[in-house]
Amino acid sequence: LLPLFLGLFQGALLLFFAFFVNYNEPSAQVEDANLVTNQLYGIFPLFQDIQVMLVVGLGLLLTFLPRYGLSVLTHNFLLLNFSMQWALVLQGLLHHFHHGQVRLDLHNLLTTEFAAVTVLISVGAVLGRTSPCQLLVMATCEVPVYLASEWAIITCLGALDVGGTITIHVFSCYFGLGVSKALFRAAQRPVHPKETPTPRSDLLSLVGTLILWVFWPSFVAVLCQPGDAQHRAILNTLLAMSASTVTTVVASSLLERDGKLSPGHLQNGSLAGGVAIGAVADMAMPPVAALALGSLSAVACVLGFRFLTPLLVRKFTLQDQCGIHNLHGLPGILGAAASAVAIMVASEDTSRSHFSQVSLVGGNASEAVGGQWGDHGVGRQALYQVVGLAVAASGSLLAGLLIGTMLRLPCLAQPPEQLCFDDALYFKTQDQGESLGLGGTAEEGALALKEQV
Amino acid sequence: LLPLFLGLFQGALLLFFAFFVNYNEPSAQVEDANLVTNQLYGIFPLFQDIQVMLVVGLGLLLTFLPRYGLSVLTHNFLLLNFSMQWALVLQGLLHHFHHGQVRLDLHNLLTTEFAAVTVLISVGAVLGRTSPCQLLVMATCEVPVYLASEWAIITCLGALDVGGTITIHVFSCYFGLGVSKALFRAAQRPVHPKETPTPRSDLLSLVGTLILWVFWPSFVAVLCQPGDAQHRAILNTLLAMSASTVTTVVASSLLERDGKLSPGHLQNGSLAGGVAIGAVADMAMPPVAALALGSLSAVACVLGFRFLTPLLVRKFTLQDQCGIHNLHGLPGILGAAASAVAIMVASEDTSRSHFSQVSLVGGNASEAVGGQWGDHGVGRQALYQVVGLAVAASGSLLAGLLIGTMLRLPCLAQPPEQLCFDDALYFKTQDQGESLGLGGTAEEGALALKEQV
Amino acid sequence: LLPLFLGLFQGALLLFFAFFVNYNEPSAQVEDANLVTNQLYGIFPLFQDIQVMLVVGLGLLLTFLPRYGLSVLTHNFLLLNFSMQWALVLQGLLHHFHHGQVRLDLHNLLTTEFAAVTVLISVGAVLGRTSPCQLLVMATCEVPVYLASEWAIITCLGALDVGGTITIHVFSCYFGLGVSKALFRAAQRPVHPKETPTPRSDLLSLVGTLILWVFWPSFVAVLCQPGDAQHRAILNTLLAMSASTVTTVVASSLLERDGKLSPGHLQNGSLAGGVAIGAVADMAMPPVAALALGSLSAVACVLGFRFLTPLLVRKFTLQDQCGIHNLHGLPGILGAAASAVAIMVASEDTSRSHFSQVSLVGGNASEAVGGQWGDHGVGRQALYQVVGLAVAASGSLLAGLLIGTMLRLPCLAQPPEQLCFDDALYFKTQDQGESLGLGGTAEEGALALKEQV
Repeated sequence: LLPLFLGLFQGALLLFFAFFVNYNEPSAQVEDANLVTNQLYGIFPLFQDIQVMLVVGLGLLLTFLPRYGLSVLTHNFLLLNFSMQWALVLQGLLHHFHHGQVRLDLHNLLTTEFAAVTVLISVGAVLGRTSPCQLLVMATCEVPVYLASEWAIITCLGALDVGGTITIHVFSCYFGLGVSKALFRAAQRPVHPKETPTPRSDLLSLVGTLILWVFWPSFVAVLCQPGDAQHRAILNTLLAMSASTVTTVVASSLLERDGKLSPGHLQNGSLAGGVAIGAVADMAMPPVAALALGSLSAVACVLGFRFLTPLLVRKFTLQDQCGIHNLHGLPGILGAAASAVAIMVASEDTSRSHFSQVSLVGGNASEAVGGQWGDHGVGRQALYQVVGLAVAASGSLLAGLLIGTMLRLPCLAQPPEQLCFDDALYFKTQDQGESLGLGGTAEEGALALKEQV
Repeated sequence: LLPLFLGLFQGALLLFFAFFVNYNEPSAQVEDANLVTNQLYGIFPLFQDIQVMLVVGLGLLLTFLPRYGLSVLTHNFLLLNFSMQWALVLQGLLHHFHHGQVRLDLHNLLTTEFAAVTVLISVGAVLGRTSPCQLLVMATCEVPVYLASEWAIITCLGALDVGGTITIHVFSCYFGLGVSKALFRAAQRPVHPKETPTPRSDLLSLVGTLILWVFWPSFVAVLCQPGDAQHRAILNTLLAMSASTVTTVVASSLLERDGKLSPGHLQNGSLAGGVAIGAVADMAMPPVAALALGSLSAVACVLGFRFLTPLLVRKFTLQDQCGIHNLHGLPGILGAAASAVAIMVASEDTSRSHFSQVSLVGGNASEAVGGQWGDHGVGRQALYQVVGLAVAASGSLLAGLLIGTMLRLPCLAQPPEQLCFDDALYFKTQDQGESLGLGGTAEEGALALKEQV
Repeated sequence: LLPLFLGLFQGALLLFFAFFVNYNEPSAQVEDANLVTNQLYGIFPLFQDIQVMLVVGLGLLLTFLPRYGLSVLTHNFLLLNFSMQWALVLQGLLHHFHHGQVRLDLHNLLTTEFAAVTVLISVGAVLGRTSPCQLLVMATCEVPVYLASEWAIITCLGALDVGGTITIHVFSCYFGLGVSKALFRAAQRPVHPKETPTPRSDLLSLVGTLILWVFWPSFVAVLCQPGDAQHRAILNTLLAMSASTVTTVVASSLLERDGKLSPGHLQNGSLAGGVAIGAVADMAMPPVAALALGSLSAVACVLGFRFLTPLLVRKFTLQDQCGIHNLHGLPGILGAAASAVAIMVASEDTSRSHFSQVSLVGGNASEAVGGQWGDHGVGRQALYQVVGLAVAASGSLLAGLLIGTMLRLPCLAQPPEQLCFDDALYFKTQDQGESLGLGGTAEEGALALKEQV
């Protein structure tokens, strides 16, 4: 079923491209040749950074399952490519249909990459107990829901979310939890023997965290206005993630009885600040806010792992394999709330400008207020942030529940429990050196093995 | 012999640099200081990306040999440095001899890096059964042959090959196969027990693939004209590699009886699109062509692993350790053929410009035609691509056969079969803690071990 | 103690930021919006490269200890963040206090990163036998000493050191050795069974070396004058590191009796050229000097591992766990000496300008001389380089001895010898699945394990 589905999709993609897609040449937009080159060099390195994050960083982060590394890397890689292609088709149909042609450029690809990120995050909730077919169907359904949700929250509602805190992280977290709940229902799953990380798999996973940590500022800043706003976004992300890292170590060693660290806390907590900062990164708030938000979200993430995840399993029989609720859900909610507060405070600062020191901060912020959301009032903008959060969380949860139910279809080949978390289910590995129907002599066996290389 | 050879080479390099080499200061070329900085920032990030690809990505890709990882990384690293230095000397002597001085700049280093790539690819055919001495002699001979072949195909013939599909990939593949054939002759080698990948070595190798996959657009686009052509090259490479990845999964699971994937197919097939797109990446062809070429080359690569490599071993006793013929040979030929077709089609589109939709595509292409090869006719340019392919393949095969015969010289210390594919042959590892001639007490043993750190 | 110390520090940091820190908006400095964007894009990619070096590259390089990988990565990561925050506070207090506000920008963060590098290097001397508490106290003390030393050498003395050869590498090496000597005193430590690298840990460590090697030019060039000087710095670093790599292979295989390579030599020697080139990278010297310096420093590094480290242990009972004296000390001294020689030679070349070929080289150099240190004489500038070296080495050694003595305080929880070099001391790993006080049934055990993910 997998090759059939993917093969048909590639065929349809070729047809769609053949009839409808062409390049959007930079020179057609901008006159000055020098500007063209600058634009390209401006966005391309950040685009590459994000590719490294998703393909290498996120892939390695998920290899904490010791016998499932090949599958995790491959599924992550395949889903990224599939979702980007699928989002390109959908986006082309929806937005970029000018003069009968979809105009393709690097900026388009970047927005499809954001659509793919939601899929890669959501999958974390059901990782290891699902087949590639199920994951592809999940991706097929999630991308249009994401595009609709992003359109509703950003375009219609006008919420501010430059780093995707609400539209990407909160959305994909609750989508994934919905799928997990509907797919696994009330089944109490005992711990699978292959699901416990080893020191070696924890090490590789930590390397993935470090790669994500280093390149996260590119992810938050890539869609910002070049200049001051982008500079602020980079600084705020760096500050938030630095505070997250230190706070994670504090929180994790306080929570464990003998002061040891949990590798899982570290792998996730150090990134929590990056999730939370997205909604406020480019706002003109004082830098201390970025530090505080980073620390808070790390605490939320570690507490989530320690208390909330076990609680969810016991009370709601809700599986969350990679703890996406702790890394993307809780910090995402914090970030959205912070964006509402930041908007309120920025406007208050402007009114009481007789405090000389604060006004120095507020001066910039109020300018931003005037420019960005002066037209419909500060209070209303703060409300929009909260409504956006509610729409993202509830909409994605509902959609996830629906799609999770669909994934129970027997034709999607959910693997039996005892074969879960094992590469041998999806990969031809060395123990299974087959005769290949070539004869079966020693030389032929050699060929069979050579072919694997 | 190895230190002697390398030491003499370093000495000669120092002498050459002392007498002939100086910097090519950017300010000497361009007046405007701002432009200088832009140029530097334009090429430097792409240069770094390519360094990551070759040193980390390609190195890791080759670590699929489970007990040979240290050697593979080291030989790859050493050959890259040696070949770049050697190419710098040769290029200096050949091209850049102005006013008695070789002018050195980042662009020069980039072209020497391309020369080094051919060595790193060719070595894949004989990896694990050759000594570092043999590999260095091979590099010494391959670099001048590459420079001559590149000069013949690009400068004399005028073939178009911005991403090195013909001049790098096809050339180095057939050079490597020639060396392998002449070096191993008709010896039927059984499968070596240490040559079969383990899940862990496959995992590291897949990480190498992912790194190569992410940075490949930089490799293809670095030598393009900045602006529209470079933008197209990046987009086409991204599309081709994305199509390759999805198609590889389809093809690999269709070919295996139980629908499982082969790690080797995935490690190579996802990159096939990048190899094939090189010759056409900057041409103004419709984007669907990039997708189709990526898919086709992935199919060719997977079919090559499944059927052609075993056939070559059986019929021609031709060893191809890393399957370079499937990753670089077949997709390279496809890419060269595609470039000829793209040139023909682009010119046809211009003539039948009454098809409104196609002409929108053809419009750009014909402009390019006019600018690029209008002076000697479209048909002739297409022919040049095919002739270039033939020159690269036949010339390198012949040179490879010749040089492979030379590598049989006993002084080059080819390792005996039972010691192949093992780091212990070239590395002092822990089991061999030596007494170091310091006395042999327990404390001295400690020193011996410390020294390894 | 660890969470208490870190928690208090984070609190103090928040307070400091709340009252004193604000952004330094690029638009406040430069009028032209285009320039702002260019500046940001100019420094940001190099900043990211350095982050990759420190977080991923250096972290992996240190994982040569086979059972200590998680701890090494985590301590490296934590110390980087802690030191950057601490340096930000100190730098803010010292330098950037204008108008009652510390102005924060990407350039500030970069200089704090350099302060953090010294900590990460110094720690290498005592790695594995120290607790995180000790390392944090060491970082707390080292950052202000570094800032003072950097101020004395660069600002007061006027030594030239664009790549940090003297101020970073030599300083941190002797600081680390001082700490090690005072901390471990005369204790003859036998080789710990967990301290010997395995082929697998050597492989990961080599990957770290390769990452450092690729991005090193960014580290050296980031603070150079854009234009010619930065271009020269990049080229010189590339040449020096390329020569280092080849020379390391030569030296290592000459020193071992059977011509095998030592993984440790390779991991360190290939980087020695990058350490040494820092002080001269942007000077207008002939390129051959960069090659020669790279070769020389690689020889010094390998000889250091082979003869000097064992000697230091025997004569001075001086532990140097990662061999930082060989990688940072010896090449650093060479680089500082080279900078003095380069300054002398450059001025001599100008006086004997009747040698036409040399004058072509000297021509540029003398210009630089005129511009850079013409005001206080060439001889004096060369002397300043040597004095700077002496100040860095002696000052840091003294400070290190003092601080090492302080680290013997029992409250800092130095681990007992038999528990050293083991992740289990600091990480909750799978063997220690605790009951978590939730009840202890099989399902609860599942939760306990899940939490680790």
